[in-house]
Amino acid sequence: MADNSSNDLASVIKRRGFIWPSFEMYGGVAGMYDYGPLGCALKNNIIEMWRSIYKGREGFVEIDSETVNPREVFKASGHLDNFADLITYCSKCQAPFRADHLVKDFYDNPDVLTPKQLEEAFVKHNIKCPDCGGDLGPVEEFNLMFRTNIGPGNARVGYMRPETAQGIFVNYANLYRYNRDKLPMGVIQTGRSYRNEIAPRQGMIRMREFNQMEVELFVDPEDKDWVRFPEIENGTLDLIPNTTLELTTMTVKEAVEKKVIANRVLAYFVYTTKQLLLSLGIDEKRLRFREHEMDEMAHYAADCWDAEVLLSYGWTEIVGIADRGNWDLSRHAQFSGQDLTHFKKYDEPRETEVERINPNSKALGPMYKGKAKAISEAISALPPSAIVDGKLKVTVDGEEIELGSEFFEVVKRKEKVSGERVIPHVIEPSHGLDRIFYSILEHAYSYDPEKDYVVLKLAPAVAPIKVGVFPLMEKDGLDTMAKEIYEKVHTSRVEAYYDGSGTIGKRYARMDEVGTPWCITVDYDSLENGTVTIRDRDSTEQKRIPASEVPAIVDALLAGKPFAEL
Amino acid sequence: MADNSSNDLASVIKRRGFIWPSFEMYGGVAGMYDYGPLGCALKNNIIEMWRSIYKGREGFVEIDSETVNPREVFKASGHLDNFADLITYCSKCQAPFRADHLVKDFYDNPDVLTPKQLEEAFVKHNIKCPDCGGDLGPVEEFNLMFRTNIGPGNARVGYMRPETAQGIFVNYANLYRYNRDKLPMGVIQTGRSYRNEIAPRQGMIRMREFNQMEVELFVDPEDKDWVRFPEIENGTLDLIPNTTLELTTMTVKEAVEKKVIANRVLAYFVYTTKQLLLSLGIDEKRLRFREHEMDEMAHYAADCWDAEVLLSYGWTEIVGIADRGNWDLSRHAQFSGQDLTHFKKYDEPRETEVERINPNSKALGPMYKGKAKAISEAISALPPSAIVDGKLKVTVDGEEIELGSEFFEVVKRKEKVSGERVIPHVIEPSHGLDRIFYSILEHAYSYDPEKDYVVLKLAPAVAPIKVGVFPLMEKDGLDTMAKEIYEKVHTSRVEAYYDGSGTIGKRYARMDEVGTPWCITVDYDSLENGTVTIRDRDSTEQKRIPASEVPAIVDALLAGKPFAEL
Repeated sequence: MADNSSNDLASVIKRRGFIWPSFEMYGGVAGMYDYGPLGCALKNNIIEMWRSIYKGREGFVEIDSETVNPREVFKASGHLDNFADLITYCSKCQAPFRADHLVKDFYDNPDVLTPKQLEEAFVKHNIKCPDCGGDLGPVEEFNLMFRTNIGPGNARVGYMRPETAQGIFVNYANLYRYNRDKLPMGVIQTGRSYRNEIAPRQGMIRMREFNQMEVELFVDPEDKDWVRFPEIENGTLDLIPNTTLELTTMTVKEAVEKKVIANRVLAYFVYTTKQLLLSLGIDEKRLRFREHEMDEMAHYAADCWDAEVLLSYGWTEIVGIADRGNWDLSRHAQFSGQDLTHFKKYDEPRETEVERINPNSKALGPMYKGKAKAISEAISALPPSAIVDGKLKVTVDGEEIELGSEFFEVVKRKEKVSGERVIPHVIEPSHGLDRIFYSILEHAYSYDPEKDYVVLKLAPAVAPIKVGVFPLMEKDGLDTMAKEIYEKVHTSRVEAYYDGSGTIGKRYARMDEVGTPWCITVDYDSLENGTVTIRDRDSTEQKRIPASEVPAIVDALLAGKPFAEL
Repeated sequence: MADNSSNDLASVIKRRGFIWPSFEMYGGVAGMYDYGPLGCALKNNIIEMWRSIYKGREGFVEIDSETVNPREVFKASGHLDNFADLITYCSKCQAPFRADHLVKDFYDNPDVLTPKQLEEAFVKHNIKCPDCGGDLGPVEEFNLMFRTNIGPGNARVGYMRPETAQGIFVNYANLYRYNRDKLPMGVIQTGRSYRNEIAPRQGMIRMREFNQMEVELFVDPEDKDWVRFPEIENGTLDLIPNTTLELTTMTVKEAVEKKVIANRVLAYFVYTTKQLLLSLGIDEKRLRFREHEMDEMAHYAADCWDAEVLLSYGWTEIVGIADRGNWDLSRHAQFSGQDLTHFKKYDEPRETEVERINPNSKALGPMYKGKAKAISEAISALPPSAIVDGKLKVTVDGEEIELGSEFFEVVKRKEKVSGERVIPHVIEPSHGLDRIFYSILEHAYSYDPEKDYVVLKLAPAVAPIKVGVFPLMEKDGLDTMAKEIYEKVHTSRVEAYYDGSGTIGKRYARMDEVGTPWCITVDYDSLENGTVTIRDRDSTEQKRIPASEVPAIVDALLAGKPFAEL
């Protein structure tokens, strides 16, 4: 093999330029990785396939919001108060540790333990500092957001976002207007998120700076159906419901009918997630959907499923698909005072008993004289919910006036109403892009120990290089012809790689090792008759095709044409 | 137009979902903007066209590195010491100001003034706080990097990167290995960068969180040619050289021959920048290239040109194309101790006088006994540059041994050398993505005051929506047919927009306002004969085409086929 280097996946990934530990020249930083040329191309291909489903097939819109956010956003979202791990420092060497990780041999779910329980566990199980054996200090909360200041001074605190989702929620009003006040409304975003892990030790599974592809689908709380559901209802899912904790396979339709998955729209996007992951090359036999257990589920979530894949790390979550109810929008409405509702128009106006505030003109007139009329109108415009402690505040001509209960009364009356305001519910398929990336590589990796030979069996759509182009020898015009073919086939979307050095076998091996699905070789016959060989990575079969048709044939193969039918 | 709202560009951008001020629901944050659905699509299209030139045509590789960097990176890059603006606070209301902005009416180049000169200028010109009239405090440096901590505690300081370029430089050794030790080597990266502006006030021109597309081309310092130069040498450029400060138009070839642009590779990428900007829709008449003046140029830069476009803000830099010499790599080599060179192989080995260290075995033997041989070998392996203060340090069997000058001598001898190590020079086309985005919108904007009608004349390749699809009426099956056409033509790369509401004129207007190049209308004839109308945005001309051919025709138009030839 190339360079006589190690052939395990971690070595291949680094040696061939998929992923490099960040800042290695300065000693590195735990939990940070850079995407090299092949990794960046593979990552971009994953994003494009995610877009092709959500923007293309489903017609959702994409936005791109800022990563530094002011404090207010995360106060409302709950991250400021709750996005924390429990930390303890060694009292001798001051090394920091995640407290729950230190007791994981003794508890099934150490992350539900309180600080006090963890401190007691240290004593009970005689747990010391893993680095120096020193005593462990008290257990405290450590907020996982990277903190910074916006602008000069310490006046405005900002945080790096811990998820891309909040950027969609804070733009709800803009998006709703863009969508011309209609539901359902699907919005996607991809980008970086940040999680200042205490001591990350799991490679790409736990990164301090990571990439997400999030989807927020806003739906009518009373209409959790999906128009395309019938198209996929007979597809099957491997599910672990939180009621039985046992793996069971059923159709999407069954899962909804048996109330295993909460509703049709959630089930549709669980299945969509399966479709996306399989198209990216995830092995179906190493994929399952696990429902959050009751103590694991966020208190506001109606239901939540994790797509888990089997990796060398064990079963690992790579996508979460949740029905978040109206949690996010109602919190942001509450903290910002903005109206984040959907006006749900009835098919026909309905007669409903409604509460209204009537101004008491007899009391207002004598008291407020010339302003009484304006105040009266301001009162009528307010909903009964505006009454606080029996009083109302109105603003007239820039002046704020507080009115006691003698100036108004709440009355019930029958009105024809054309609809009602509801806070939309949110269905959220949230994809861990780096984890998906890494899972694709693990599932594509194959190694033949006898030949000491690695092949990455990447799906052609995600493979960073689509086609290798080789001259048999770099002479006699073979190189010129090969370079011409390379120039014709190589684009920023269909990447080609020209390689003229070493034996052809070695060049095939180099391309197999990075998952290139096809290789073109120009030989002496090519100069005579204008044909070249094309070799298939997985079957290693070769065929001759006209050189002039290489770009069209590669396009056809990428579109799904089987190699055998060339 | 739509909603009777204002039709100036700023209103259109916000109302139609190109750009929204970030966190508006929480009062906003200056210098931060989110890309809405149309803006995100337009931005992604710009990135794709940049990739098609640099990854596609030039065959460069793309990487994606982390945005939080440890302190060491910016110590080496110089940002920690020099990436600062001069700040002053009002001594009365404490508002912060950029000191140079306060005196801009009195000086041509206020940003070259020292803190002392600025303080004197405040007194001389009687400059007070623009907000409250209070006295201005002392002028100090304010570093523009957002600062944070990596991991728990304050042990490890990190900064949000101020440019994507450093992520490429710190990966030089990895990239060089990926490129199989060859130069030239082109590497691109797009992503967010951060600049904690003191008081940003120029919209998308000065953002605290912004997007870049950077290109770092590593070249042999003695070979600043470019293989494709002859293809573009007769292209013309509008240049403002720093020698004359006057606009002059000349060919690329002339610019190099007259030494207006420092070398051929730099000139090639100045012209490439022009090609990219024109293809994105920048108006050629509002584009020029200005050379940095001598006091403006970084001390390490051999030459630097800014692509400037004429905007409502005046002439504004949107791309910088610099020859950065070996500054970045030599600094990182110095601070990290790593070898960041290129081995430049001679065509034939050359006989050269070289300095080597010879161990003095007679002294080593008696002193170091059994270890003498190993020490002797360790000495021979070191270059003369390893001698510090007349002493050498070697490590043998894990033990570090310091050797005085009695144990070795430096000798000169003739050797055949096959090449030499050089630190590559860097050619850097650095694109301000948000500024390019905004410039495209300003240059595409057209407004007819008589008709009160806005058209964004966006290049089809960057237009966020490629085709509007309308049923004449939403009934009689016209809507079904229109929806079928929409489903066929809409993909994540060719976005279509279905619109069934309002008059056809109003629907054309909506699409014109966001720059959609073509609209398809399904009418009663369509049901009879299977044809639909296609309308061209700029000519407003209409033709009938077969409904079944809509996707192919839209593809052909996007590939450049003129509407008139349909």
